[in-house]
Amino acid sequence: MGKQYGKISMAVIRRLPKYHRYLRDLLDKDVNRISSKELSILTGFTASQIRQDLNCFGEFGQQGYGYNVEELFHEIRKIIGLTKTYNTIIVGYGNMGRAISKYTNFTKSGFTLRGIFDNDPAMIGKEAENITIQSVDELEAYLKNNKVDIAIISTPRDYAQEIATKLSNGGVSGIWNFAPVDLKVSSDISVENVHLSDSLYTLSYLLSQKDDKTEK
Amino acid sequence: MGKQYGKISMAVIRRLPKYHRYLRDLLDKDVNRISSKELSILTGFTASQIRQDLNCFGEFGQQGYGYNVEELFHEIRKIIGLTKTYNTIIVGYGNMGRAISKYTNFTKSGFTLRGIFDNDPAMIGKEAENITIQSVDELEAYLKNNKVDIAIISTPRDYAQEIATKLSNGGVSGIWNFAPVDLKVSSDISVENVHLSDSLYTLSYLLSQKDDKTEK
Repeated sequence: MGKQYGKISMAVIRRLPKYHRYLRDLLDKDVNRISSKELSILTGFTASQIRQDLNCFGEFGQQGYGYNVEELFHEIRKIIGLTKTYNTIIVGYGNMGRAISKYTNFTKSGFTLRGIFDNDPAMIGKEAENITIQSVDELEAYLKNNKVDIAIISTPRDYAQEIATKLSNGGVSGIWNFAPVDLKVSSDISVENVHLSDSLYTLSYLLSQKDDKTEK
Repeated sequence: MGKQYGKISMAVIRRLPKYHRYLRDLLDKDVNRISSKELSILTGFTASQIRQDLNCFGEFGQQGYGYNVEELFHEIRKIIGLTKTYNTIIVGYGNMGRAISKYTNFTKSGFTLRGIFDNDPAMIGKEAENITIQSVDELEAYLKNNKVDIAIISTPRDYAQEIATKLSNGGVSGIWNFAPVDLKVSSDISVENVHLSDSLYTLSYLLSQKDDKTEK
């Protein structure tokens, strides 16, 4: 099991995957060492922010040498929890659910898909990703008999809260939520949202403002 | 065309889609009016933050009455730019590209899909969403002859920057980027990222920390 860190701000936590991406790219390019200044140019974070961020998790790098890329990459993987495996299920196997289940980064990184649930009778009993699709009616029984670390909700919005409540009662540790709702679940469950419409609407706001600017 | 607002912080802009979601839900439930206090309970934002946010865009609501839900909903739609239409193309028509193209909230909200591009010879020339899939080699010519508001990048990461550069040179206004890279484009192009791995890795960090807590 990983190390426990003190209270780390969500802003720092959200930067970890970005460090992970850049370090992987550097490794791919056979770069062995990097200074916080060079890392700053790549990531857009300041060198002092990088040093501060990494200091939350331990002592990395050496004055005058910088960071050993491979070492830091593996440390970041450990910190993020990517050296573990996670039993994962998907609830809602429409277009988005299917796309997520085929997402290579997801399956390659220790997130093992164990169950797929949908409410479409035409789908139930069929195979996908070597798993038999089950009815959502079987979700509660499944959760009683199987430890689920991460449940992915990719149902239409009207079903999402009901499913989340079942997942919450069934003891899942985390929910990766793609439905466009803010879920209400017990506070010991971590919820991470991918609100696609919110993201697209942010973009449309920015574009609308630009239109007006060029018109002036 | 919409109204131009002063410099609004990204934090406020990112809350707009959330107001939009909650107001739509209220409308669906035939709620006609709501106080900032009630809206606060729903959204989790404080009442004073809600009033401040909305004040950035005009005068909404009345002391002692609250907000007219329908009116506010339509105003928010205008502010976000959802009363306009956007010529949209998708570059990279794998699982994620297909899921996005079928995403109902997307097509219903004025984001009109005009073009699909991929580099897979088996796909080029086929029809999807009533559009003939074109080769990415034709992207530059397409951009010369067609105004594109939003380009969706859903290619593997190694192709994303090259595509982004072409889109940038070709004059697109905004990029909705699903590839796990931070794109470097001209500053007049708005980029909105959906970094799925980053989101999943944030969740795995939170779960790892929880494991450790229960072990203590």
